[in-house]
Amino acid sequence: MNSIITGTGSYIPKIIKKNSDFLNKEFYGDKNKSFEASNEVIIEKFKGITGIEERRYLESNLQNSDAAAIASKKAIEKSGINPEEIDQIIYAHNFGDIRYNDSQSDMVPSLASRVKHLLRIKNPNCVCYDIIFGCPGWLQGIIQADNFIQASNAKKCLVIGAETLSRVVDPHDRDSMIYSDGAGACILEKGNDTNKGILSHASQSYTFDEANYLFFGESNKIIPNISTRYIKMYGRKIYEFALNYVPDAMQLALDKSGLQIGQIKKILIHQANEKMDEAIINRFYKLNKTQTPSGVMPMSIQKLGNSSVATVPTLLDLILNNKIADNELNDGDAVMFASVGAGMNINAVVYKF
Amino acid sequence: MNSIITGTGSYIPKIIKKNSDFLNKEFYGDKNKSFEASNEVIIEKFKGITGIEERRYLESNLQNSDAAAIASKKAIEKSGINPEEIDQIIYAHNFGDIRYNDSQSDMVPSLASRVKHLLRIKNPNCVCYDIIFGCPGWLQGIIQADNFIQASNAKKCLVIGAETLSRVVDPHDRDSMIYSDGAGACILEKGNDTNKGILSHASQSYTFDEANYLFFGESNKIIPNISTRYIKMYGRKIYEFALNYVPDAMQLALDKSGLQIGQIKKILIHQANEKMDEAIINRFYKLNKTQTPSGVMPMSIQKLGNSSVATVPTLLDLILNNKIADNELNDGDAVMFASVGAGMNINAVVYKF
Repeated sequence: MNSIITGTGSYIPKIIKKNSDFLNKEFYGDKNKSFEASNEVIIEKFKGITGIEERRYLESNLQNSDAAAIASKKAIEKSGINPEEIDQIIYAHNFGDIRYNDSQSDMVPSLASRVKHLLRIKNPNCVCYDIIFGCPGWLQGIIQADNFIQASNAKKCLVIGAETLSRVVDPHDRDSMIYSDGAGACILEKGNDTNKGILSHASQSYTFDEANYLFFGESNKIIPNISTRYIKMYGRKIYEFALNYVPDAMQLALDKSGLQIGQIKKILIHQANEKMDEAIINRFYKLNKTQTPSGVMPMSIQKLGNSSVATVPTLLDLILNNKIADNELNDGDAVMFASVGAGMNINAVVYKF
Repeated sequence: MNSIITGTGSYIPKIIKKNSDFLNKEFYGDKNKSFEASNEVIIEKFKGITGIEERRYLESNLQNSDAAAIASKKAIEKSGINPEEIDQIIYAHNFGDIRYNDSQSDMVPSLASRVKHLLRIKNPNCVCYDIIFGCPGWLQGIIQADNFIQASNAKKCLVIGAETLSRVVDPHDRDSMIYSDGAGACILEKGNDTNKGILSHASQSYTFDEANYLFFGESNKIIPNISTRYIKMYGRKIYEFALNYVPDAMQLALDKSGLQIGQIKKILIHQANEKMDEAIINRFYKLNKTQTPSGVMPMSIQKLGNSSVATVPTLLDLILNNKIADNELNDGDAVMFASVGAGMNINAVVYKF
């Protein structure tokens, strides 16, 4: 009676921002401090660490929930279900709907309600809510949907991860180059084969010292009387935190699944930073006294950047549509999903197709 | 194996705003239209419909999550559990943390993470997330916690409803008088008596025509070049919607519980508007061909206003602390919780002490 994914969809925003688009930015470090290095050097170093060459920004006439509705429509069509049969719409984000050139988050009504409205679903028993859980929000939505299915309170759930980080980036912060926009969605249904679907999951929240590693803060360029806040992070601290704790959560999920490390064909990890993701995966395999298999970690970060909650469902959709070379997933293949982000939250799911 | 509430807590903000504090406000209707009636008349009429005499605003040095942490600490102490045993912290809100005199919502990290941090809980397996579900968010958090408990993924959950509507009100809108700030919390635990605790629940989302009955919109006073948005509602539409649909959801929960209408000792309904709440309750009893029992609906709206997600948990905490005259709840008493709000969402829970 495991929950299975029967359809996926994504929306890749149309506006491409290349690294070269940041060449003329006025970057500052902490406290208005200028950098000695030129933007060329900063960008080259950035690309070397994160792997990011370009990222996507949502079209100015759209908001987060519009992109989510497009992704959701595709997921529903792929699954073949009647949208009126959906029991829950769970929408993970962290900033609500933000209009282009605005700074206010809007979540009234919830973004899940907006998607249901846009999809023209009438059934009042389709209950919709948003979840705020940092970048691991979409995967946590999957875990929550699985809980509703296990508790016999739902049979079919639409789980969305969509974010417009382009609307909360500080143009004077080098880290702004990491962030991207995107939307991914999937249909999770009650299955009838205990050997398929979600085999196990693990979630953790580290808040004692780590709560503010990702936060909402003022611009690196001090501008008198302006207190607009943006997404901010302590990159080095996050890197060390992720390396120390994400492999353990992945191990927990693996152990619960009953599978062996060699049975995991692919790991779909939140696309935060290529070097960090590689280091996490390497440590996970080291925990299992195994060499990291070549090509185990498909990535889309080079072209799509870090779109928070959207990276994992978008990557899954791209893979299932054969848009990531040499990464097909076939019946019987097991994968691990993993994510880390603001909270600081970590989660992992072992899933068998 | 029903889930039971083992402790409650609340934080009533210290700043009292009386109706007379609105006498000098510059109120407008739609499109900058002035009212013919004086503020005295407007306020008197407002009080007659909503029952509100005064409301509470959070102290300027605090944010939503600070109030929530105080309420949570009390709930934990009341329950007698070790905070390190909490499996989930579920925090319902709709606007995040908003600083005094600011307009940006901040949810990075999630408010649940902030509460865990403030409570100095270390256990990483205490997973914290926020839920956005309009005013019924706290009750939906209770339903979600119950799902985790039923699916054996949690034994002890902290469920919070906290909001600072004072920071999103349009001073030029009469409806601003409705809104208030507050924080309520409870501990929900796995019980061992199938005759106690949560007996049944029902949730619904109406979005086809209703999604934008409550929304985030610009001030009633048109000010050039200012596009700050505030909480807004179509009061008449909400009133009619609530009357048409809330009694049905309450009936659904009652039917599922196996209890008879006469066994419901109290109904704790979201304190949105006294006249509307009375009309909902009357229609619910009418559905059951029964006269509404006198005193079945304890209220705190007169002194506390509409604090969104916080009204129901705050009211419950006040009752359990014997702070609402003639409304004790004793072992064996059954109550119904019910709520309606942005989404438009409705839910109801039948609970036995």
